[in-house]
Amino acid sequence: MNKKRIGFIGTGLMGEPMALNLLAAGYDLQAWNRSPEKLDRIVAEGGVVCETPAAAATGVDVLICMLSDGPTCDAVLFGSGGENAVDALTPGATLIVMSSIPVETAIEQARRCEVRNVAYLDAPVSGGQKGAMDASLAIMVGGASEAFDQSQDVLSALGRPVHVGPAGTGQQTKLANQMIVASTIATVAEALLFAERGGADPAKVRDALAGGFADSPILRQHGQRMLEENYEPGGAAKYQLKDTRTALERAEALGLELPVARTADALFAAMVEHGDGDLDHSGLMRELRRLNTQS
Amino acid sequence: MNKKRIGFIGTGLMGEPMALNLLAAGYDLQAWNRSPEKLDRIVAEGGVVCETPAAAATGVDVLICMLSDGPTCDAVLFGSGGENAVDALTPGATLIVMSSIPVETAIEQARRCEVRNVAYLDAPVSGGQKGAMDASLAIMVGGASEAFDQSQDVLSALGRPVHVGPAGTGQQTKLANQMIVASTIATVAEALLFAERGGADPAKVRDALAGGFADSPILRQHGQRMLEENYEPGGAAKYQLKDTRTALERAEALGLELPVARTADALFAAMVEHGDGDLDHSGLMRELRRLNTQS
Repeated sequence: MNKKRIGFIGTGLMGEPMALNLLAAGYDLQAWNRSPEKLDRIVAEGGVVCETPAAAATGVDVLICMLSDGPTCDAVLFGSGGENAVDALTPGATLIVMSSIPVETAIEQARRCEVRNVAYLDAPVSGGQKGAMDASLAIMVGGASEAFDQSQDVLSALGRPVHVGPAGTGQQTKLANQMIVASTIATVAEALLFAERGGADPAKVRDALAGGFADSPILRQHGQRMLEENYEPGGAAKYQLKDTRTALERAEALGLELPVARTADALFAAMVEHGDGDLDHSGLMRELRRLNTQS
Repeated sequence: MNKKRIGFIGTGLMGEPMALNLLAAGYDLQAWNRSPEKLDRIVAEGGVVCETPAAAATGVDVLICMLSDGPTCDAVLFGSGGENAVDALTPGATLIVMSSIPVETAIEQARRCEVRNVAYLDAPVSGGQKGAMDASLAIMVGGASEAFDQSQDVLSALGRPVHVGPAGTGQQTKLANQMIVASTIATVAEALLFAERGGADPAKVRDALAGGFADSPILRQHGQRMLEENYEPGGAAKYQLKDTRTALERAEALGLELPVARTADALFAAMVEHGDGDLDHSGLMRELRRLNTQS
């Protein structure tokens, strides 16, 4: 069985370890990145450097995009001027956008691919750089079932792909993920502060709650950061706010009122406004203390 | 080494399996319950039936109380009329109240024990009837360190005790636990409804999020109940509301504003008001659908 040829666009913090995992899984891989020095390790592991996005797309079975945001993806994949990546794809190839982009952008990209006879999947990830390195990413995939079935081998080399519905629903699911993360960080901060103000040792409280119904990776990892007041990001609060804001806009477009997500969003907005946007999102504890300054 | 003699008051849904675990661990146990037929299994396993709370307290090293609420505990443990349990304790014995009661009640009980030269621990639990049967309860313990150290063997026969601080802080920690549970149920319901309205398959979404940062026992167990619309309690919503209400009153007494807990409380209040208080707390999904009825 012939291994597929993969084009990879965007080899930054997340993209580089993902591309390396595809090479380790035996795929032929050709890659483009705006800063070419971020391709050095990929070349060392057998990848091919491309000078343009179009070159990275030429002759591949699957093109993966891991650029930073929706406008950048749109410009590189679909931009005018004859050098965009998608126009260089062979009809029948598959484009997988693994960046976190707006739902509406994903749906529009799928439509533009369809008219070019290119299959499209939106497949954003959760798990951070560690998940990218360990090939343990949670991969939330929207798009046609056939495209998912045909790409499952490639995605499985990067983590655990789950097909959740048609194009756009991968991004919708990523927003759902971010809503839960933001709200859980907020409730864990509230609970630890509440326990502390009541005279309990918050480190013991975290320990006591772990293993019960209040347990979560957020309680364990972000709760620990709150106890240590170690707010090196991790996931910066300003990006958490961008995600909750995008989720609430999408909810509004769907006519949905989500009170807890709105409350968490307001807390992150206050945190960023008070100058803590570059701290880890667990630094929301600082905002909660600010709100509850003892007078 | 002589095993301790234990008195046990309140052998209902939780208390009965806890008393049986103490017998299985080799302790001598004497028990009282308002409805004596709930003592049958305890007698069958070697426990002694007592006719009054005072009789259950007589001659024991440790008296455990697992009655349903604060006023009931107060009446049986400290009531006037010469038949209360605490007055029958030998000075130097330890009273462990494992019921969920108000923080202020626990602090007052500790004070009343101190003047009688009885050690006091408040040690509410999380984990439900299954945790009680499996001896896997999360046990949140407030009280003096020496009393905790001396009772750790007994508590360890029931689950995983963690000493979180002075008297009352066990109850404070239990409220923190309930705040996280209530808020996490709410955010999981919001996220699943958001994904569904955006066209994703919510069962696949739950599957995709499990194992990432949005994962939790609530996502797995209560999320599954939401998907199946199976709202047999489990933990009834009206008790969840009682807990969030108690937590918010305690927060107010401490001068604390907790926006996410307040939002979750308002959702549970609306759920109970709309007649769903006897459903499992995961039935909050019904309230969220009600709030977002598609017109």
